[in-house]
Amino acid sequence: MARPIIFGEISGIEEGHLFDGRKEMMPSSFHRVWGRGIDSDKEKGAAAVVLSGGYKDKDNDDIIIYTGAGGRDKNGKQIEDQKWSHNDNTGLITSCDRGMPVRVIIGHKHKSLLAPKSGYVYAGLYYVDSSWDEIESFGDKQFRMCKFKLVYAGKNTNRPTPEEIELDHSVRDKKRRQGTVMRIVRDTQIALMVKELYDFKCQVCGIAIKTKSGFYAEGAHIKPLGKPHNGDDSLKNLLCLCPNHHVMFDKGTFSISDNLSLIGNEKGRLKLDEKHQIDKSNLKYHRTSHGYE
Amino acid sequence: MARPIIFGEISGIEEGHLFDGRKEMMPSSFHRVWGRGIDSDKEKGAAAVVLSGGYKDKDNDDIIIYTGAGGRDKNGKQIEDQKWSHNDNTGLITSCDRGMPVRVIIGHKHKSLLAPKSGYVYAGLYYVDSSWDEIESFGDKQFRMCKFKLVYAGKNTNRPTPEEIELDHSVRDKKRRQGTVMRIVRDTQIALMVKELYDFKCQVCGIAIKTKSGFYAEGAHIKPLGKPHNGDDSLKNLLCLCPNHHVMFDKGTFSISDNLSLIGNEKGRLKLDEKHQIDKSNLKYHRTSHGYE
Repeated sequence: MARPIIFGEISGIEEGHLFDGRKEMMPSSFHRVWGRGIDSDKEKGAAAVVLSGGYKDKDNDDIIIYTGAGGRDKNGKQIEDQKWSHNDNTGLITSCDRGMPVRVIIGHKHKSLLAPKSGYVYAGLYYVDSSWDEIESFGDKQFRMCKFKLVYAGKNTNRPTPEEIELDHSVRDKKRRQGTVMRIVRDTQIALMVKELYDFKCQVCGIAIKTKSGFYAEGAHIKPLGKPHNGDDSLKNLLCLCPNHHVMFDKGTFSISDNLSLIGNEKGRLKLDEKHQIDKSNLKYHRTSHGYE
Repeated sequence: MARPIIFGEISGIEEGHLFDGRKEMMPSSFHRVWGRGIDSDKEKGAAAVVLSGGYKDKDNDDIIIYTGAGGRDKNGKQIEDQKWSHNDNTGLITSCDRGMPVRVIIGHKHKSLLAPKSGYVYAGLYYVDSSWDEIESFGDKQFRMCKFKLVYAGKNTNRPTPEEIELDHSVRDKKRRQGTVMRIVRDTQIALMVKELYDFKCQVCGIAIKTKSGFYAEGAHIKPLGKPHNGDDSLKNLLCLCPNHHVMFDKGTFSISDNLSLIGNEKGRLKLDEKHQIDKSNLKYHRTSHGYE
């Protein structure tokens, strides 16, 4: 485990890359641990998972229900419950909380359209949508298993994006799901940086939302991304906020003056790390957008 | 204004329906107010808007940047700022906060591919994504205008859904936007019911997120919608929560016992209105999913 953990794409290994075996994945840190499904760092997150047919992981390639680690004896027989405190399961929850990508590798024994005839294939980057417990039967015994929903989020434009996958579900479920999207919270590499800078504590209230493995926060763009505002996805345009203050900021319930005092319906000052330079023209844009100047 | 305000689709008037004039929209309550762009109730929301070319509303049909009401003299000349406190603008913010659909009507003078040769066309249901101020020039004067981003959310499967529209932006902006979707908050007719029942106050902490016009809350499904859980979109499976407690509930930071006491990382009891019957099997599902039993 001396090799460093690497998240996201690894140079030279494109989606669809074939590996003869597990050992070939190790020198590049693509998947560092032979014989284990999850390549994980408890605090930093899980970088890669292998689906090798060991568990009955149901998947349709774009949404994968992945079973966590632990509870098996030396022969691979399930003999006890899986635990969220297992390093590998905790790593996947960390990836979920932080919106980090996980490399998915599919082995030839796995039931999937993507499975190669032999060896392993890199199926692309996925994000961890959610996690939960499930009671599963193994012969006459039942054990509690850790489950993860992984959703394709790679760069192959021939495969659907998370939005299209969600949409496909809606359409299949009931033609068009009644109702609208209120909020889509995206996450980017830069957003992770701002959240780590503040240890996932909200820059307004200091709250960090506790999860099974660590903490959750959201990267909030000061000048919004997308039409018609076209703000940047840069550290100078990002704040680390709890979901409540993210909603309030986006809706203009409060804004921020150049001296970082809060204006509107929040009192106090924005906490700002000395390494975090905010573009004041973005603050001004937010104030002007919401009637504060 | 004696006619009741009606939200969403009106029976017998499908998307694409043509009206000779504004008066034809009034008997059915499709758009009740002649000569005004927005048919709105300050507290309940805006039911319908007309785009008649009166303002320079830029739109591509699926995303419409709509200008609010107010500040014009009898001849239609802009003579002062628009105000968020104007009933019609407040109504559109209420619709935004509550995830309610707005009927969009496009007149023949409006620059749009959907514009009819004469009269007006019903362009479908939209949701109000966001609102902000913009300084606009009128001759040598400048006024502050209220702006709304409306996104198509109707039933015409030949037109894109909100997810596809968001996606289309991502793809156009930079091939595939880096990063993943952390959270998609959808809203449904039923979700609005549960939020209204609690006056938008979180059933855990009592907080209602203040916005420009009223309050914001989220409808949280106890047993999740979608694969693999397949929970119902019904009042028995919904809670009214603030965004923070919505995230915490979805991630299993806390759960709820059958006697409504909170378990895990929250203390106290779930506030429950006597008219709100929760399906206890859904609570059990949540507890089991997150290791509380």
